[in-house]
Amino acid sequence: MQSSAVPRASQSALSVLPLAGIKRVKPGDDLAAEIVAALRRSGTSLRDGDVLVVTQKIVSKSEGRLVRLDKVKAGVRAASIAKELGKDPRVIELALQESRRVVRKGQGILITETHHGFVCANSGIDMSNVEKGYVALLPVDPDASARRLREAVERATRTHIAVIVTDTFGRPWRNGQTDVAIGCSGIEPTENLSGKKDPYGYVLRVTQPAVADEVAGAAELVMGKLSMVPVAIVRGVKYTRGESGAKGLILDPRLDLFR
Amino acid sequence: MQSSAVPRASQSALSVLPLAGIKRVKPGDDLAAEIVAALRRSGTSLRDGDVLVVTQKIVSKSEGRLVRLDKVKAGVRAASIAKELGKDPRVIELALQESRRVVRKGQGILITETHHGFVCANSGIDMSNVEKGYVALLPVDPDASARRLREAVERATRTHIAVIVTDTFGRPWRNGQTDVAIGCSGIEPTENLSGKKDPYGYVLRVTQPAVADEVAGAAELVMGKLSMVPVAIVRGVKYTRGESGAKGLILDPRLDLFR
Repeated sequence: MQSSAVPRASQSALSVLPLAGIKRVKPGDDLAAEIVAALRRSGTSLRDGDVLVVTQKIVSKSEGRLVRLDKVKAGVRAASIAKELGKDPRVIELALQESRRVVRKGQGILITETHHGFVCANSGIDMSNVEKGYVALLPVDPDASARRLREAVERATRTHIAVIVTDTFGRPWRNGQTDVAIGCSGIEPTENLSGKKDPYGYVLRVTQPAVADEVAGAAELVMGKLSMVPVAIVRGVKYTRGESGAKGLILDPRLDLFR
Repeated sequence: MQSSAVPRASQSALSVLPLAGIKRVKPGDDLAAEIVAALRRSGTSLRDGDVLVVTQKIVSKSEGRLVRLDKVKAGVRAASIAKELGKDPRVIELALQESRRVVRKGQGILITETHHGFVCANSGIDMSNVEKGYVALLPVDPDASARRLREAVERATRTHIAVIVTDTFGRPWRNGQTDVAIGCSGIEPTENLSGKKDPYGYVLRVTQPAVADEVAGAAELVMGKLSMVPVAIVRGVKYTRGESGAKGLILDPRLDLFR
């Protein structure tokens, strides 16, 4: 072993714990109370520094962001796009309503930029893990949702934690989807390493790990899509406490080569 | 708690263990032997099903994929792009040599499609964690690298494991970078859930978690860029054994809306 410009960090293990026993969430439910109850039922105690990861779907449900599809009337533009893509015109209507603009369409896929600034399929609207006949929209302000959850869970458990609200996004050029952060509180979504030296003395320039997205993906590995585990605890993450929110993950449009 | 169409999965915890004590890797080093030695030194035993995550940089080094920059002569095209972007023309020359095509350039960034088919900055070439004056190129065939590592480590440890070779990629529309899989062996990079029913009875359509990328990101959380921890063990991942390789993560160009 050789000396290095940076002291060897005492990196320690990380664990990702699924939280079972969350019941089906309905509009108006107190999600924080439900999570605290599930923690107690499962005998799991939160610790300071834990990151509580919560899927968007149960946040949206508790906030009443559900729409009965048979109440939606598709406009002319939505009907035209739906026909082109072979999709339900009512879903396309909602996706347009929830977006600033269409980024791409084709291959049966509509990619939009949501009012928050996230670029994803159908403005994040989908029908999975929702009562039949309904779709779930993204929370209006997922960072605020994360903050409310964090504050309520911290009060109930007397801990200092972070909360990340996640959704499942596709990516250009790569098959499959990963879970990413759409809201966060108590954690800075990226770590900025620019200007720091690596062990060879090289000064890093653009290195900025998207910690919140990596935590979201790690949590997905224990949640799954089929198993009613919409909450996980990620323990042992090194992160900076802060309130930039997941909106801090949205790339400045002026710097964006893929708009 | 209610009944559901799919039995509640007995999801269990996942852990991510950094492997300390890997020494600086040089061209020609036997990386598998080095990892096995580090496992022994640290008192860590691999278990069947573990995913061994290895950063690209040490794989490239062991395979001699290092180039002395002062031996590189930039051509006319590289010089022109370098001037436009404010970059080292020799790095741009190598990035062009390692690519099929330029996907985007601007904002001081060159995005290429590598010969493997990965879309990333500078064809994955970079100067961090490399001896001064050198750059590291991506492995020629990262899936083959992963397979050789898996087979050698399995032989030495008498286990059945998976290996993922990772690199740090930026993403369109989002700040920061995440680690993703550029090579894998012993693990299918995505799980295909299409046709399966969620707990509400809804048949999932496009759901295909990119497990290998989520594992890569989880491993990054314990590795860091500054700490000489280029290997981690991810334990408790549910995955399908297979040899599609990370080339299975490359989206078919005919389906790609962002080429």
